[in-house]
Formats: sequence, C-alpha cells, structure tokens
Amino acid sequence: MLAVTILGNNSAIPAFNRHPTAQVVQTAEQSFLIDCGEGTQMQMNQYKIRSSKIDHIFISHLHGDHYFGLIGLLTSMGLLSRKHELHLYAPEVLKTIIDLQLQVANAHLPYELHFHPLKNEGIILNDKKIIVECFKVKHRIECWGFLFKEKKYLRKIEIEEVKKHDIPTAFFERLHMGEDFVSENNTVVKNELLTSAVAPPKTYAYCADTIYDEELIEKIKNVDLLYHEATYLHALQQKATTRFHSTTLEAATIAKKAGVKKLLLGHFSSMYESLDDFKTEACSVFENTELAIEGCSYMI
Amino acid sequence: MLAVTILGNNSAIPAFNRHPTAQVVQTAEQSFLIDCGEGTQMQMNQYKIRSSKIDHIFISHLHGDHYFGLIGLLTSMGLLSRKHELHLYAPEVLKTIIDLQLQVANAHLPYELHFHPLKNEGIILNDKKIIVECFKVKHRIECWGFLFKEKKYLRKIEIEEVKKHDIPTAFFERLHMGEDFVSENNTVVKNELLTSAVAPPKTYAYCADTIYDEELIEKIKNVDLLYHEATYLHALQQKATTRFHSTTLEAATIAKKAGVKKLLLGHFSSMYESLDDFKTEACSVFENTELAIEGCSYMI
Repeated sequence: MLAVTILGNNSAIPAFNRHPTAQVVQTAEQSFLIDCGEGTQMQMNQYKIRSSKIDHIFISHLHGDHYFGLIGLLTSMGLLSRKHELHLYAPEVLKTIIDLQLQVANAHLPYELHFHPLKNEGIILNDKKIIVECFKVKHRIECWGFLFKEKKYLRKIEIEEVKKHDIPTAFFERLHMGEDFVSENNTVVKNELLTSAVAPPKTYAYCADTIYDEELIEKIKNVDLLYHEATYLHALQQKATTRFHSTTLEAATIAKKAGVKKLLLGHFSSMYESLDDFKTEACSVFENTELAIEGCSYMI
Repeated sequence: MLAVTILGNNSAIPAFNRHPTAQVVQTAEQSFLIDCGEGTQMQMNQYKIRSSKIDHIFISHLHGDHYFGLIGLLTSMGLLSRKHELHLYAPEVLKTIIDLQLQVANAHLPYELHFHPLKNEGIILNDKKIIVECFKVKHRIECWGFLFKEKKYLRKIEIEEVKKHDIPTAFFERLHMGEDFVSENNTVVKNELLTSAVAPPKTYAYCADTIYDEELIEKIKNVDLLYHEATYLHALQQKATTRFHSTTLEAATIAKKAGVKKLLLGHFSSMYESLDDFKTEACSVFENTELAIEGCSYMI
C-alpha cells in the first residue's frame, strides 16, 4: 500500500480555507511528511494523521509556504513527549533557523532530531519498505523534488512449494530475489517453481515548486503518480514563468512526456476560488489528472 | 470603542480546534495584534480581521505558541502588496529570526517593517487614540505584558455654548483639556460652561504567560479588562508553578487584588476539552470573569 494524503494544496497566501503545502506519503506502517506549511499540525489533527508515525520529514525549499509550520510541529512532537528519533531532510540553512528558534525559547527537544542537508541528487533514505531519492527542480531559490519508490521483493514465495522441496528458511531472502535453489547434492530447483511474480513496486514523484522544465522528464519517467504544481491556469503562463511556477497545461505536458500513469495537481494560487478549470485544462493534455484536495488520499 | 477579539485561546499544543495565542485589540479605526501563534493569519481570515488595518504588532515572548505565525503573516502582508509601514514590538532577537527567514527565501517585504525591541517598562506607543505601555511579567523566559489605554479628551465641547461665547477654534484643544477661556478684554468663560464630562478612557491589560505574581497587581490596578492566563485548573497548581503558568484561582486572585472591572481567562491547556470548570473556579474568587473564546469580541 502506498498512498498520498493532501494536507495543504494552496500556494503562498492561505485562502478559501485552503492551506499552504503539506502532504503525507503513507505505507501500511509509516508516514512520510513532505513539506510543512503553516498550520500543518492543525491539518494533521483534522485528518487524523498521527505525528508519532512520522519518522521522516522532507522539506523541498525555504519559501515559507513550504516550511513555516515545521518548527511548530517539531515543538509539539516534543511537548507530546516523543522519544523516538526524527529525520529531517532539507536545505542546509534550515538547521540554523530551527536551532535559533529552539535556543531563544530555551527549549530542548526530548527526541533526537537528525538533520540531513540536501546536497546531491540521489538516494537520501533507504528504509525497510521504501527508498527516497531527491532531485533538483528549478525554482527561484534552491529547490528539491522527492521520488518515493516502494521497495518490494521481486518474487513472492509460494509456501506450499517451498515446504514440498524442503528449502531452508535461510534461503528465503535469495528466493525473493529470484535465485534458483541448489541443494547439497546439487539438485537445482528453479525459482519459478517456488515463487510467483508480484505487482511491481509503486513510485511517487513530488516536484515541489517548479517552472516548466523538460529536464524533469527523465527524473520522473513512468512513475505511477506525479505531483506537479499548477499555480496558475494557462492564461497566466507569462506570470507563471516569471515567478518560476507552472500552469495546468505545462504540468500536464510534463506528465504526458514522462509517460506517468497519473497526475496530481496542486499549489493553486489564491486568485482562484473555484478549481474546476484546473482539471478541465490539464485533462485536455493529459487525461488521467486529479486535483490535490485537502483531506483526500490518493492511492498510488 | 475599545474591544478585544480572541483568535487563539489555547496553550502550546493546538487541540480541540483551539489555536495558540493571538488576539486583536480594536478601536473604531485601528486593530492592534497581540501575539501571533501558528495559524493566526488563517484565524484572521476566518473572523474577518483585515491585516491592512493592523499597523502595530506586539509579541510578548518567544515561546513558539506566541509567535510562530508571525513570519507567515508578515510574508502574506507582503504578498498582498501592503505598502504602509508596520511596527513590531518584541524581544530583540526576534529581528534576527525574521531577517534570516526572509534572507533564505530571497524575499523582501514591500513595506517598511519598524522593529522596536522591548527593553524597558513604559510607553512604547503613543498614538492618536491609544497609548500602549509594556511591563515585565515572570515566565520561564523574558516575557512582557501590554497595557492599552484609550486616549480621550478630558472634556467634550458643547458646540452651541462655544458659538454663543464666540470661542475661536484655535482654543478648542485647550477647552478639551479643561481650561477656562480668557478673552482679549479679560472676560473669563468657565470651562464647565463650554464643555461637559466624557466617559473615562478605557484600559486593557494583557498579562501574557505568567506565574502567579503579586507584583503584577500594581501594574494593572483598576483596569477595565484584564486578560490573565489560566493554563490549568487549580488542582494542578503545583504543575502551573513549576512551568511558570497560573491557575484559575490564581488569575482570579490577581484580578480581585488589582480591583479590575472584568477578568478574561485564556491560554487553556490541551489537557482540557471542556472549559466550563475554568469559569466556575475563577468565578468563585472573582465573579466578573469570562473565558476567552475564539472568534468572540469583548467590549472594554
């Protein structure tokens, strides 16, 4: 199971009860928070996202609508007596800001906060069930996208077959990976006899705030779900470009060229009360488009 | 007209849809923001408090639940193209935090932000219709209370009488202040003939976060409305003291000893879902007590 729940879908100024950017990627066991605009902890309360299940937080860039809620969340985790460690992946200077804010409050977090400054593209987290990579996106300041890849065994063990052939449990890991079993007397049991194929691992790409940028295509190729910002309808393409943001048609074009399965649009400008046109415009280029709506979970 | 509108009445962790501390003191023309916990700008949207009417912001101390919403509000004011200057009164190091957060976002406010570090007790704002003084309160870190005093003429001019006695308009200001008029031929017209008494100016004291502290009494004596925190019910007096907070009975005792007209309780701990007992307990010591409820305005 891999899903993303939207906590904030608006751009910089909160409006129409829409909140600044935050979303949670969820597996059966864990939650991963991406960006943390002001009010994220209240949105988590609202939508029953438990902060104790979050061990990893990813901050794309240091525009306030993507991180002003972080210090409040970190502090609240402390006040809720969190003991287990937390990992934070973000542009380096964020650590200075957090340290300063804790220091002036004479506050100490009762848990270990591991800060991982984002420096190079590539794997930043290799967890039991998930791999996270970061990649650069083009915005007005340093900005990072995140690619979530479910980690799955290549093959599922067929337990009856395995018993029948008396395969030792110590070999299960290698069975999962597709190896044939060779017994002590050199009998070979083909892996296909002992295992079956599983659904391919799912992938989710979060492109943060970005100008229309075809260099993204290679980085997010064929993902199951792509989150791409669409701050403006396409009539404001010039404005979008000037501000290093994207429009509906631009997001949809990236989705199409990258051959992704589904597109999720977000970061809507406070200019727009109704979001209907965002979907209509994007679908004209890439049909399998959905709008990121706060409180909704999207299965990946 | 002097009133205070509550935007956040909870202590550190947001809970039960209660928000961290923020309130707005309003005259007919102006709004003054006191403290600015996370989500204050959303609460302002919710309760139709226009940020353009706020020219002065007062931050009591640098615990996050009193200022984490400030940088978001300042930034949004900028994005809304505010041009007129804003005055911020706060502990000095807040300026460093704000400057750093603007700098990493490569952001510039399009309006002038005048930072007034709180250093000594006394008058910090002497405006057309209001005087604001700050005073020290005892909390775990440097913490300030604020005293709002309506500025009013001593006397109201009776325009018919003034016409009858041919008083020049240049003398009106002195009439307001209670002076008799002396004409060129030394005729004295008594001030009481020309003016009448007005209602005394109203006063509001905001005591921020504070331990039970009888030194407060002199500073807030006889105010029309006293906001005093009551983080806990009185059963948790020991906990309150340890954390430099107050209980219901302690807040009510201060109100009683200071002879204030009315007491407003706030900063309720997230331990309590229902607030009924806060009122019952406080009223047992000081009857004219109200609870600070979000979205409610209290006339002073």
